[in-house]
Amino acid sequence: MNMMKKNSLSVPVRQYTTKKLIGVPENETIQNACQKMVEFRIGSLVVCNKKVVGFFTQGDIIERVVATGLSYTEPVSKIMTRDLITADIDTPVYEVLELMQKHQIRHMLITEEAHITGLFSLKDLVDAERQFLETAISSE
Amino acid sequence: MNMMKKNSLSVPVRQYTTKKLIGVPENETIQNACQKMVEFRIGSLVVCNKKVVGFFTQGDIIERVVATGLSYTEPVSKIMTRDLITADIDTPVYEVLELMQKHQIRHMLITEEAHITGLFSLKDLVDAERQFLETAISSE
Repeated sequence: MNMMKKNSLSVPVRQYTTKKLIGVPENETIQNACQKMVEFRIGSLVVCNKKVVGFFTQGDIIERVVATGLSYTEPVSKIMTRDLITADIDTPVYEVLELMQKHQIRHMLITEEAHITGLFSLKDLVDAERQFLETAISSE
Repeated sequence: MNMMKKNSLSVPVRQYTTKKLIGVPENETIQNACQKMVEFRIGSLVVCNKKVVGFFTQGDIIERVVATGLSYTEPVSKIMTRDLITADIDTPVYEVLELMQKHQIRHMLITEEAHITGLFSLKDLVDAERQFLETAISSE
């Protein structure tokens, strides 16, 4: 069983990476950014100024906006994370999970040739596992 | 491999359920509730009035508070989910995942003898999988 488990998480994170990165400009208001999260049903956004300059998650909004009482009309540049944590798209899933655990994050920006091109989230992994399981059950 | 996967998700959800439910009263302000989420590093809260009367997640705050421009000083009773979706603690994990997919939720309230006593989240499942993997690797 260990080998089975290990194999499924030894594949490159590429397999679970979504390329549908949604971005907002630095001067976008926090409220508008949250409307975008709702519209696209996503838990995070990248902030772009030609290239990716920041990133923030729903958890960041809770912590840095609502819990502290910051106005919704402030720009996302005020609350975005600037020190971006990334992993190359060929990194094995289990290494990415270890990095996410170390940094206590649920989303990892994925790079190809040093450019950010995708996102890996815990939700993506669980969704993939569930789909695998449903296929297994329906093929019996 | 299918069987391996399936076995790991056929166990009762009890195995992945946390009993550390954190609650707030109905008249708690949204801002204070978010401070509690940050303090306890959790993504959801139950709302209690002797028994559990509501539930909300970080995603609900984004959608029902920030995106709509609701004041942080409103009580959580204004935005909480009242129609609670629950699963019994002896339900197999894969059935709970199917229910979560159907309702498009990432957290499931867990009941024992019809009383809400715990919470199962996608994060709990991934954390458990990662720990299993680390044990498997370190025992080689």
